[in-house]
Amino acid sequence: MSRARESAVTGHWITFDPGGSHVWSLPSETILDTARRAGVRIASVCGGRGLCQSCVVRVTEGPVEPPSQNDLEFFSAEELANSWRRACQTFACGDCHVEISARARAVPMRSEVESEDVWVRPDPAVRLYPVQVPPPTLQNPAADDYRLMAALNGKWPGTCSRIDLDVLRTLPGTLRACEGRVAAIVRFGEVIGVVPAEKGPLPGLAVDIGTTNIGVLLVDLRNGRTLASRATENPQTSHGADVITRIGKARSSRERQKQLHDLAVGAINDVARELCEGQSLASAQIADIVIAGNTVMHHLLFELPVEHLGAVPFVAASTSAIDVKARDVGIRAMPGAYVHAIANIAGFVGGDHTAMLLAIGGDHEEKTVVALDIGTNTEISLIHDGRLLTISCPSGPALEGRHIRCGMRSAPGAIESVEFSGEQVRIKTIENAAPIGICGSGVVDATAQLYLAGLVSRTGRMTREDPRIRMRDGQPEFLLAGEGHGPDVVFNQRDVRAVQLAKGAIRAGIQVLLDESGLREEQIEQVIIAGAFGNYIDVASAVAIGMLPDLPLERFAQVGNAAGIGAKLALVSYPHRATAQSIAASSRYLELAGLARFNRAFMRAMRFPGRNRN
Amino acid sequence: MSRARESAVTGHWITFDPGGSHVWSLPSETILDTARRAGVRIASVCGGRGLCQSCVVRVTEGPVEPPSQNDLEFFSAEELANSWRRACQTFACGDCHVEISARARAVPMRSEVESEDVWVRPDPAVRLYPVQVPPPTLQNPAADDYRLMAALNGKWPGTCSRIDLDVLRTLPGTLRACEGRVAAIVRFGEVIGVVPAEKGPLPGLAVDIGTTNIGVLLVDLRNGRTLASRATENPQTSHGADVITRIGKARSSRERQKQLHDLAVGAINDVARELCEGQSLASAQIADIVIAGNTVMHHLLFELPVEHLGAVPFVAASTSAIDVKARDVGIRAMPGAYVHAIANIAGFVGGDHTAMLLAIGGDHEEKTVVALDIGTNTEISLIHDGRLLTISCPSGPALEGRHIRCGMRSAPGAIESVEFSGEQVRIKTIENAAPIGICGSGVVDATAQLYLAGLVSRTGRMTREDPRIRMRDGQPEFLLAGEGHGPDVVFNQRDVRAVQLAKGAIRAGIQVLLDESGLREEQIEQVIIAGAFGNYIDVASAVAIGMLPDLPLERFAQVGNAAGIGAKLALVSYPHRATAQSIAASSRYLELAGLARFNRAFMRAMRFPGRNRN
Repeated sequence: MSRARESAVTGHWITFDPGGSHVWSLPSETILDTARRAGVRIASVCGGRGLCQSCVVRVTEGPVEPPSQNDLEFFSAEELANSWRRACQTFACGDCHVEISARARAVPMRSEVESEDVWVRPDPAVRLYPVQVPPPTLQNPAADDYRLMAALNGKWPGTCSRIDLDVLRTLPGTLRACEGRVAAIVRFGEVIGVVPAEKGPLPGLAVDIGTTNIGVLLVDLRNGRTLASRATENPQTSHGADVITRIGKARSSRERQKQLHDLAVGAINDVARELCEGQSLASAQIADIVIAGNTVMHHLLFELPVEHLGAVPFVAASTSAIDVKARDVGIRAMPGAYVHAIANIAGFVGGDHTAMLLAIGGDHEEKTVVALDIGTNTEISLIHDGRLLTISCPSGPALEGRHIRCGMRSAPGAIESVEFSGEQVRIKTIENAAPIGICGSGVVDATAQLYLAGLVSRTGRMTREDPRIRMRDGQPEFLLAGEGHGPDVVFNQRDVRAVQLAKGAIRAGIQVLLDESGLREEQIEQVIIAGAFGNYIDVASAVAIGMLPDLPLERFAQVGNAAGIGAKLALVSYPHRATAQSIAASSRYLELAGLARFNRAFMRAMRFPGRNRN
Repeated sequence: MSRARESAVTGHWITFDPGGSHVWSLPSETILDTARRAGVRIASVCGGRGLCQSCVVRVTEGPVEPPSQNDLEFFSAEELANSWRRACQTFACGDCHVEISARARAVPMRSEVESEDVWVRPDPAVRLYPVQVPPPTLQNPAADDYRLMAALNGKWPGTCSRIDLDVLRTLPGTLRACEGRVAAIVRFGEVIGVVPAEKGPLPGLAVDIGTTNIGVLLVDLRNGRTLASRATENPQTSHGADVITRIGKARSSRERQKQLHDLAVGAINDVARELCEGQSLASAQIADIVIAGNTVMHHLLFELPVEHLGAVPFVAASTSAIDVKARDVGIRAMPGAYVHAIANIAGFVGGDHTAMLLAIGGDHEEKTVVALDIGTNTEISLIHDGRLLTISCPSGPALEGRHIRCGMRSAPGAIESVEFSGEQVRIKTIENAAPIGICGSGVVDATAQLYLAGLVSRTGRMTREDPRIRMRDGQPEFLLAGEGHGPDVVFNQRDVRAVQLAKGAIRAGIQVLLDESGLREEQIEQVIIAGAFGNYIDVASAVAIGMLPDLPLERFAQVGNAAGIGAKLALVSYPHRATAQSIAASSRYLELAGLARFNRAFMRAMRFPGRNRN
């Protein structure tokens, strides 16, 4: 357990794959230590104490010391023969190559996705056609719309059958100002914009509208390239942090509902404008928009009634894809541009989940996959045997850092990771600012560390016997940071209970899906974790507390903002919209409110799993 | 020439067909006199003096006196043998049946059209589907839109693929208020309204929006029956009586253009509301709307720029059919209802002309037909050999009673017809009110009568030698009414000149169409006169002054508000919309502004034709 150990007196070159970082190891450093020092990310929940299963690597070249007793117990003989080790247990004794396992790389994957160079053959709903429209003459005084359509259909037969009314209103002016050298932007036979013929991108927006954040990608529809992206806080949060509060607000009056609508639309417009300006574009050039959001955000955006989303059986007004003029929603774009909203699945499984399933290829997935987006409600789909089964679990606010003693949202100064290193507590804060609170991923880490350190029992009881646990307000609590260097950041008994409720709901949700399909946990071939929170949690911690099933970590993938990616796919490739619609339509939704076995599974899943499963 | 003549001492029963009126003739009455006394309409331009060719009838049964010398010259031997006579020249000498010829019935035809029981197989764009939508349950908490679509498509496969956003917004409330017993109104797969399932009409609007008047028909789309109709003044007239003035106003500022739009829409909404209320319906039940208007009215309604309509080569922004949500135009209807605007043909040949051509079956017309709508601009189409050739002539305001000394629009007290009966002047005013002015049809009559009486020369010069002509302000003028019984209503030299300009333009227009097609006047098999003014003019008078070609009067038909009928056809029968579009698209438009031969024809056509053509 102790890291103190004889080691090579001089260092060695260690090359980490993937990434190819070339790092000089210092004497008595484990491979994990070397990696950390050099900023090479290897997941580690237990802080290098050999307690957990996160820092798995494979030594593909070069000599390392023989496996520790701990690793001899941890790995099978075959795995050891294949040079699998835990980085925290392994010391190099010469230059070597170390391959970081998929699970240990889990977090870096996030940034890959955030740069989101998903490739898809561009096949957008909207296309640009440069054309020369002849002027009217006395001999041929044909109308402006007629001459435009004749020119378009002359060059590309069948391209155009109608012109949006707003476009028509500006067409005479545009044609004359450009002497007929224009480009028509056409969507399924309808001219939605006519602009001076100029080289440049044809911008579209992919919008992921979440309860807390709104993410916007500005994409060039001609080639599918993301030109820029930005996230902003959903300004509706001023009307309540969660969907239930917002449903209540929206129900209170039509004006309030309109206000919530206006806030979201305003934020989208502001971000879009900034993104456009950064590319020397204008919002009025945006030719197409795809939106994915949870059902409540979706309904508020389209001013659909939300009251039935707030009461059993939680029925959505709409789970079909919506295509509507952007101007009818208030989103600034090309005069005739449309907004396409990806179909919702159910009252608490929105288009963002559909988009996520689209992004991960849920429609042609042949493996047995659990895909989940963790939040106040956690949407989970089980893909098995070509079928999709979906639920939504009330996982509560704890995992977003809310209803937690020192909880906060992801922002500078939030503790985002916690590691116990012997008696030491290592915390990492967002932007390395002085710790001021703890956010969702830190909450999961803290719970896992307290449990793994034996400070919390399997039933979730915090010990009062350990000197590290102090009592305040009748609550046992653990000090994460502070002690005069800043505000105390603690994690207490109530916080542990809140996490138990959250992780219990998620785990029970997964269990219900498995039961419904007659599957056992180990038959899950992949667990895909999407969304902002899911992107930042330490999977090993989540497994340690029993939130996620106890599977080899390689089976987990954190895919980041998959809803945004799905929205982008649907933006760049029209056929993907049809796929999304068929994913939503073919998904079978299980309403947990009516499911007694969910409650039973939930009670079981609130306990923590055994600490050592080997 | 004199009406004084021996006649049967006692009277006889005269039955007039069509109509079947049974009238007792008085001694020395001509058949025309008898008809007039009984209110049976037989056209007569010359006031029964045997000068003209309007009052042609056929005596199908019973004895009449032998033909007068005049009729012996007027009719061929064969026609006489077939009992053709002029009513003003014929005396019954026993009970008889008199069939009134088509041309002599011309005016009554108008009212037939106004009651407009045009028959068309109902095939509307919009249909109503009653359906029972099951409530959501915990076991099946499907969204409201999903359950509605499933119920619709279950009962009528393929009916419904999407729901209008405004409908979606009210769908949850409607479904629950009606316990799922609703009717969906569907337009090409899109649900545009959901209402409680109740028996009742499915109302639609056919709107004919003219420069002066707006006509609205409320139609039951299920069976094509007109439920009610009403016309109202186009309130834009406060911004100018003619399209040129309105173009100027609209160009002056965006606000002014918006104001013109709002005025027209407001009027349509007001009339529609009244019509609906009369049927215990609400505007919000209107399921479909078809609009036909001249190009300027059309552009103002849709807020399209009109500036290019006001300058050579008079180019429209749009001559395509427009389909747009009624709410986007401001017309009150069912939440998702559309407005369909019938395609324009050119800058000065609007959708009203297209609708007229649709109403008269212009697309499958095999005869050589001239169809015209007389107004400040007169739109004329020549249908020949399956082709359509169209022009618009600047016929000016005289025929609408404007720019005429005592001119006024059609309103109570306007002289609408003028007959010289020997030395007597018989006038008829609208609603038989005391004469206060003269409207369009009176203007044509007055000109014809003055010319036929020899008071105006072929070149249009009013004689100064006749005691009936007096001088005022250096102008020769003829007193039509007044002499102390009310204000003087006169018709003067300048009025004659104004009529010459108007009728010359129309006649020249027809001539240009004939020339362009290599046809002679007598090859025209039918002249169809549409529109409010054309409906009220005396065709014989119009022929007498050379406004219309000198053809047998049977070849003329006054079809009343054919634009409104066309709009109704397109409303009740969707395939007719495609026909209208193809009529508009296939029509070849001749712009007169560039046509020297129009000016030559115009100079010739300003003269009056010979007085006696027999």
